[in-house]
Amino acid sequence: MPKVTVHRKAHFNAAHRLYRKDWSDEKNFDVFSKCSNPNFHGHNYELIVSLTGEISKETGYVYDLGKLKDLIKSEVEDAFDHKNLNIDVKEFKDLNPTAENISVVIYNKLKKHLPKDLELEITLYETPRNFVSYSGD
Amino acid sequence: MPKVTVHRKAHFNAAHRLYRKDWSDEKNFDVFSKCSNPNFHGHNYELIVSLTGEISKETGYVYDLGKLKDLIKSEVEDAFDHKNLNIDVKEFKDLNPTAENISVVIYNKLKKHLPKDLELEITLYETPRNFVSYSGD
Amino acid sequence: MPKVTVHRKAHFNAAHRLYRKDWSDEKNFDVFSKCSNPNFHGHNYELIVSLTGEISKETGYVYDLGKLKDLIKSEVEDAFDHKNLNIDVKEFKDLNPTAENISVVIYNKLKKHLPKDLELEITLYETPRNFVSYSGD
Amino acid sequence: MPKVTVHRKAHFNAAHRLYRKDWSDEKNFDVFSKCSNPNFHGHNYELIVSLTGEISKETGYVYDLGKLKDLIKSEVEDAFDHKNLNIDVKEFKDLNPTAENISVVIYNKLKKHLPKDLELEITLYETPRNFVSYSGD
Amino acid sequence: MPKVTVHRKAHFNAAHRLYRKDWSDEKNFDVFSKCSNPNFHGHNYELIVSLTGEISKETGYVYDLGKLKDLIKSEVEDAFDHKNLNIDVKEFKDLNPTAENISVVIYNKLKKHLPKDLELEITLYETPRNFVSYSGD
Amino acid sequence: MPKVTVHRKAHFNAAHRLYRKDWSDEKNFDVFSKCSNPNFHGHNYELIVSLTGEISKETGYVYDLGKLKDLIKSEVEDAFDHKNLNIDVKEFKDLNPTAENISVVIYNKLKKHLPKDLELEITLYETPRNFVSYSGD
Repeated sequence: MPKVTVHRKAHFNAAHRLYRKDWSDEKNFDVFSKCSNPNFHGHNYELIVSLTGEISKETGYVYDLGKLKDLIKSEVEDAFDHKNLNIDVKEFKDLNPTAENISVVIYNKLKKHLPKDLELEITLYETPRNFVSYSGD
Repeated sequence: MPKVTVHRKAHFNAAHRLYRKDWSDEKNFDVFSKCSNPNFHGHNYELIVSLTGEISKETGYVYDLGKLKDLIKSEVEDAFDHKNLNIDVKEFKDLNPTAENISVVIYNKLKKHLPKDLELEITLYETPRNFVSYSGD
Repeated sequence: MPKVTVHRKAHFNAAHRLYRKDWSDEKNFDVFSKCSNPNFHGHNYELIVSLTGEISKETGYVYDLGKLKDLIKSEVEDAFDHKNLNIDVKEFKDLNPTAENISVVIYNKLKKHLPKDLELEITLYETPRNFVSYSGD
Repeated sequence: MPKVTVHRKAHFNAAHRLYRKDWSDEKNFDVFSKCSNPNFHGHNYELIVSLTGEISKETGYVYDLGKLKDLIKSEVEDAFDHKNLNIDVKEFKDLNPTAENISVVIYNKLKKHLPKDLELEITLYETPRNFVSYSGD
Repeated sequence: MPKVTVHRKAHFNAAHRLYRKDWSDEKNFDVFSKCSNPNFHGHNYELIVSLTGEISKETGYVYDLGKLKDLIKSEVEDAFDHKNLNIDVKEFKDLNPTAENISVVIYNKLKKHLPKDLELEITLYETPRNFVSYSGD
Repeated sequence: MPKVTVHRKAHFNAAHRLYRKDWSDEKNFDVFSKCSNPNFHGHNYELIVSLTGEISKETGYVYDLGKLKDLIKSEVEDAFDHKNLNIDVKEFKDLNPTAENISVVIYNKLKKHLPKDLELEITLYETPRNFVSYSGD
C-alpha cells in the first residue's frame, strides 16, 4: 500500500525562561538575551505531529487522526498548556526549554504510545517566525 | 544545474462521506465517527503540488508554474471542485475518500502528464488542522 | 468602563447545496452555477463571534471567552459540524443555505443566550476567499 | 480628501497571569480557570494599530507607517516584549492583564503621541482564536 | 430582509515607486525613504472587496460573488496585475501610488458598476503588515 | 545529541522582470508571459531559512536564531529589500531572477557565513501560491 504522511495541528500557551542555573544572570543574558528574563515571558506554541506509514487497506487511514488528537491532548496539551515550562513541567527541571529541547521532549513522550512501524516528526512553532522540526535522528 | 523544488497551491471544495459499503452504518460510525454521516459533510481542500528537478539553463525554471496551474485545473479542479467525491468522482466509487486516498489519486492523475525526470509530491489539507503528504513511495 | 469587542474563532465542516425547491435544476444552475450540484459539495466554515460591551470592573472581561466557546459548541458546532446543512439542519429545510443566510441563523441562535446589553456580530468564512458578516440590522 | 484607515501589524511575546490580589487562589481559579496559574503562562500577542484620517494631498499618506512602526516599538514592544506583564509592566501592577485591559492600556499609551485628528483603533490577538478590539469609546 | 456584508478576496502583483515628480530624489528619499527607489520595488497586493446590502429573498444572496469576482478581474486584476503602477496604469500618471491612493482608485473603478443601494468598502494589503481600508467617506 | 532543524522567517519586497537579454520581447513574452513586462512588476517575497544540526549541550540551541536573523538582514534584506532585482542586485545582472535562481543565490550568500556542519535549506515564497525550496543539491 502507498506510504503517506498524515499531519495533525495542535497548540498550547506557556511561559518559559531560557537560562542555565549554573550561570550568572549576566552570563545568561549574554547568551540568551531577552529570552532569559528572570520573570519569564511566553508563547502560543503551535505544534504539528506527523506520522508516516502505509495506508490501511481496511480503513484508508494511516492512523486515525481522532486518536492522534486525543494522544496529543493527554501527553502534550494537558501537560504544557497554560503552564510555566521551567517550574510546572518536570522534563524541564534541568533542561533548558528551548524550542529544540521542547520538540525532543514531545517526540519522546508521543513515540512510546505509537505503533513502532510509524515514523514520527515533530514541528514546533515558538512564534510564527521561529520554528523547529525533529524526527528522531 | 541546481536541483530545486517548485510548489504550486490550488484548492477545491467538495462533499464526501467516509464509509465502506460492506459495513453497516453502526460499524462505519464506530470506525469513522461523525465523518461517516450518511448525508455527507464537506471541506475546502487546499492542495500543494511540488515538483523537484534541475533548473533549466535556458529559462531559469524547473517547470513553468503557469503550465502546472493549468494541469491542476484540468486534472483536479475540474474533476473534484463543487463535487460529491463519493458520487460524482469515478475514482472513489469503490475507494474510501480519506485524505490519504485522495492524495494518492491526485498523484496518479498528475504523474502521467509530467516529465519523467521530475519528482512529484502532493500535500493535501482537508482542514487547516488535518493534512497529508504523498510522494509516490 | 471602556467598551471593547471580544472575538472568538470556531469552525465546522459541512456539506450543502444552493437551490430552490420550486425551481428546476436548470434554473438553479443558471442562478447558483456549480454551487447547485444536486449531490452537494462542502466547506470548512470558519466562524468569528464578536461581542461588544463594557469591561467588567470585577474581572477585566467583557464576556468570558471560555463560556462563549462552550455556547458556540452547543449551539453551532454540535448542530452544524459534519452535517449536511440542507438535510440535517432544520433551519435550512426551507431556507437556502447561502453564507448570508447561515450567518443570520447563527446570529439568531446565539443572540437569545447572551446578555441583552452585548452587541453581537457574526463573521463567517465559507472559503478563505468568500466570507460574510452580520450584526443584526 | 478621502478618509482612509491605515493599519500596521506588530507583535510581542509575554508572560501573564489573570488574577485579583484580593481573591484567594481558589476564587481566582473559579473565575479565571487555567489562566490564573500562579506560575504564569504566556502568549505571542499580535497587534494591529489602525489610524483613520484624511489622505495628505502632499504625500498620499494618512500617516507615515514607518513613523507608526517606530512609535509602536518605543511605546509597546520595548515595554511589553519578552516581559512578564504582571511583574515587569507598571500599568498592570494593579490591573488584571486581560486582553481587554491590555488593549486599553496600549490605546492610551499611543493616543497621546498621535495627531488629535486621527481616530485610533487597537486590535490585539492573544491567540489566533481569541482577540479584542478597542477604539476609545 | 437582514442587511449583511459579503466579502471577496483577490490579489495582484505589481511594481511601484513612491515619489513626486516635482521633488528632487533627495526630497523624495527624505519623505518616502526606501519606497522611493528610482528603479521601483514591488508587492503582492491582497484585496478584499466588501458589499453591504439586504439579502435577496429570491436567492439568499446580497450580491452574486461570482459576478463580483468577474468585476474585480476586469476592473482591477486585468488593469494592475503584473504591471508597473507608475508607468502602466493611467490613474497613477500624476497620483502617488500609495496604498491609500490605490484603495481610492479601486473604490472609484468598482463603484460605478455596482447597484447604488450597496455600500462598498475596499481593504488593500500592501504587505501582510501594512494595509488600508476605504469606504467612500 | 539529537539533530534538529531550526527555521527563521524573513521577508523583502522587490521588483523584477523575467526575461533574457538575448531574446526579443516577443520571445520573452511567449516564454515568460506577463512576468516579462518590460516595466517590471513585483512581489512580497517571504523567506524561510532552515538549518539542520545537533543541539548544543551547552545552550540547547542548534544555532542562535538572533544571529541568523542578523545574518539574513545583512546578506539578504539589505541587498534585496525595496530593490529592483534586475537593475539593483549584481547577482542578477546576467541571471534571470526566477524564484528558483533567487533561492540559489540566497543559499550561496548565506552558506559561506555558516558553520560547515550545518545543513542549509532555503524556502522562498514569491506569492502565497508559488514557492520554491533549495538545499544545495
